[in-house]
Amino acid sequence: MNGAGTPRIGRTAWAVAEGYIPSQSTGSGRALESHEAICLLNAGQADAHVTITLYFADRDPAGPYRVTVGARRTLHLRFNDLRDPEPVPRDTDYASLILSDEPIVVQHTRLDSRQSALALLSTVAYSQD
Amino acid sequence: MNGAGTPRIGRTAWAVAEGYIPSQSTGSGRALESHEAICLLNAGQADAHVTITLYFADRDPAGPYRVTVGARRTLHLRFNDLRDPEPVPRDTDYASLILSDEPIVVQHTRLDSRQSALALLSTVAYSQD
Amino acid sequence: MNGAGTPRIGRTAWAVAEGYIPSQSTGSGRALESHEAICLLNAGQADAHVTITLYFADRDPAGPYRVTVGARRTLHLRFNDLRDPEPVPRDTDYASLILSDEPIVVQHTRLDSRQSALALLSTVAYSQD
Amino acid sequence: MNGAGTPRIGRTAWAVAEGYIPSQSTGSGRALESHEAICLLNAGQADAHVTITLYFADRDPAGPYRVTVGARRTLHLRFNDLRDPEPVPRDTDYASLILSDEPIVVQHTRLDSRQSALALLSTVAYSQD
Repeated sequence: MNGAGTPRIGRTAWAVAEGYIPSQSTGSGRALESHEAICLLNAGQADAHVTITLYFADRDPAGPYRVTVGARRTLHLRFNDLRDPEPVPRDTDYASLILSDEPIVVQHTRLDSRQSALALLSTVAYSQD
Repeated sequence: MNGAGTPRIGRTAWAVAEGYIPSQSTGSGRALESHEAICLLNAGQADAHVTITLYFADRDPAGPYRVTVGARRTLHLRFNDLRDPEPVPRDTDYASLILSDEPIVVQHTRLDSRQSALALLSTVAYSQD
Repeated sequence: MNGAGTPRIGRTAWAVAEGYIPSQSTGSGRALESHEAICLLNAGQADAHVTITLYFADRDPAGPYRVTVGARRTLHLRFNDLRDPEPVPRDTDYASLILSDEPIVVQHTRLDSRQSALALLSTVAYSQD
Repeated sequence: MNGAGTPRIGRTAWAVAEGYIPSQSTGSGRALESHEAICLLNAGQADAHVTITLYFADRDPAGPYRVTVGARRTLHLRFNDLRDPEPVPRDTDYASLILSDEPIVVQHTRLDSRQSALALLSTVAYSQD
């Protein structure tokens, strides 16, 4: 499969209004630790330079956080892992805005293992150009 | 980060066809109490004045409920907490219509802790201008 | 609240590609019985006449099933309850197409209580006019 | 129901940015085995020829995988079952791009039974023409 037939799929502005990282987990290991993630797909032929801004209920936004999604690659990014310019507070409501210089697709997922069994949610984010 | 580069993201009319607040919870504390919420993101430079109307199976709509989402802020609003003009009945099917005077993004989430482990659902709401 | 200000929100064609009703439940009572549902919101001033067609992997479609969603009402319809022209088979993959003569909003939900704790999924359906 | 009234519903390009097949399950039997699936609905009068490409974090894409969704049929396809040209690696982040020569609707679902109770997620995929 070469790139000639790859469609230019995706958009450049995405928003996830829900955000919450529980501070507690019952699962063992990284895979089952409570986390929030955005999955980014760049099906195109050029690297996508992405900035993420976080919004809160009662303070100014944080960011921008910067990541690159390589051409023809996916990046599953945990908000838990963001450090620069500041970590994401736990047990705190937030929302996120994701802007890219190339078309991408963004899906939001949370794995919650606060109780004895895990819970999952996922939704394609809101998008526009 | 100043506001100059903030895109005008979102729409002014949103609908969530699913709604149901269980009257029972097994989780302890507010975080794990069964609840339904809408997460609203206002990434713009002006406060958003939002009205929510609730629809039922067999009675006239309730509302409007009024909330403000500040500029560059997110509001995670639990239907459980709505009081004025009337509380949301438990164990009852409802749907909601959310109208805003500024573009916003709306995501719907339910945490259900009726049984011994919690369950989660989330989806970006239906939107149009 | 009178109808003068009600926006004409929604679309007339909706599709849910996922469908599966487990034959087993561990929850007690109708609320916790495993079920698949579509939540329909008609925020408009006229009753919506809706037809549902079910698609399967290896047989011709079933339907149309007919329901009415009253003006300014919501209907949370369980596929489990459909009887005419035929019940929905359990433990069988299906998909559904929902057509309406008035704009509506459709959200898909499954509550699964096959195991000791319930699981939930929900997503706004695919729509077009 | 004959095909004369069938609307041409769906789109020809779909993307699912989230993908992850856990290698572990606690559920017994195929129904409760951890799996990721895409549900494809072809409500039209012609067979849909579909190609699926998988994207990864740190290697070139895999595929195309080829499936046919018959006219007026649904196909609930587990990524777990894909074999040709290669199986989908477990415990590995991936994303998928689904292209069709006829309009289809695609919904993404994961059933996760790693822990003692199952968890579900589902969302309509991102689409464009």
